[in-house]
Amino acid sequence: MRMTTLCLVLGLLPALSVAAPVPADSPTGIAFPEGYQDWRVISVSHRHDNNTLRIILGNDQAIQAGRAGETTPWPDGAILGKMVLKDTAHDAWDTALVPAAFVHAEFMVKDSARFEDTGGWGFARWLGRDLKVFGEDASFAQQCFACHTPMKDNDYVFTDPVVLP
Amino acid sequence: MRMTTLCLVLGLLPALSVAAPVPADSPTGIAFPEGYQDWRVISVSHRHDNNTLRIILGNDQAIQAGRAGETTPWPDGAILGKMVLKDTAHDAWDTALVPAAFVHAEFMVKDSARFEDTGGWGFARWLGRDLKVFGEDASFAQQCFACHTPMKDNDYVFTDPVVLP
Repeated sequence: MRMTTLCLVLGLLPALSVAAPVPADSPTGIAFPEGYQDWRVISVSHRHDNNTLRIILGNDQAIQAGRAGETTPWPDGAILGKMVLKDTAHDAWDTALVPAAFVHAEFMVKDSARFEDTGGWGFARWLGRDLKVFGEDASFAQQCFACHTPMKDNDYVFTDPVVLP
Repeated sequence: MRMTTLCLVLGLLPALSVAAPVPADSPTGIAFPEGYQDWRVISVSHRHDNNTLRIILGNDQAIQAGRAGETTPWPDGAILGKMVLKDTAHDAWDTALVPAAFVHAEFMVKDSARFEDTGGWGFARWLGRDLKVFGEDASFAQQCFACHTPMKDNDYVFTDPVVLP
């Protein structure tokens, strides 16, 4: 029985698991945060101008800071991920909007020194389910930063963490 | 230094950390799932009839089943948690709705044998940030179940898991 299990592990699993290609690094120098799917939730939002639902996730440093209320500023090492999905009415509950197509994944990486020119945050975005890297060069981050500038007093972050009871 | 740390751990931390009281068990016999705040996200939704945003979380069994597409039926042991919060417009982005007051936490616990009368799911709800247990007696679960019955072909679950790329 043990040998069978071993054979399965050694022989079959590698054939079954097709590893997704690693997305290209962002032009801002940020690597795609592998394993972000296991991060815990910071908040959610719904934009009714472009009909998207958003799931905002945080790495461990971000979760810890969010729960402690230590987010002005967020600590170096914190990463926030925003998963953007088109909304659609639920088939069986027409006043509920639920996620449909995956639009993009975007991340803010806090590193005060490295990203001094953009408020201490590095910006990165990957498009669609195939996670095509966004931005011809690093200059796109200036647009991200410009949009986040009204939130300067909140360390340039739109999201306030939900602390669950 | 070690002794100082030890003293801090033994002496100071218990004084600083005020443990929240454990919520009462649901009349359906379900204990409040402690630590659910660390569960990973299953999906999100927005109900515009009652102006609430929902964060749907899953325990490890639920996350595993969701990612594997093994949710008709969900496996015994899976627990889904729905955190319901009132929505409000973002102060700096008026077409974005973000979470406000916490309304309630509700859970569905899959146990085919134990909850045979309600589709194999046990239902439980706790109200507000003080997590006041919902339901005078176990009969409230019949209302939950009635509302979920249109989803019978989806194992009585409204939420389809978002599989993040």
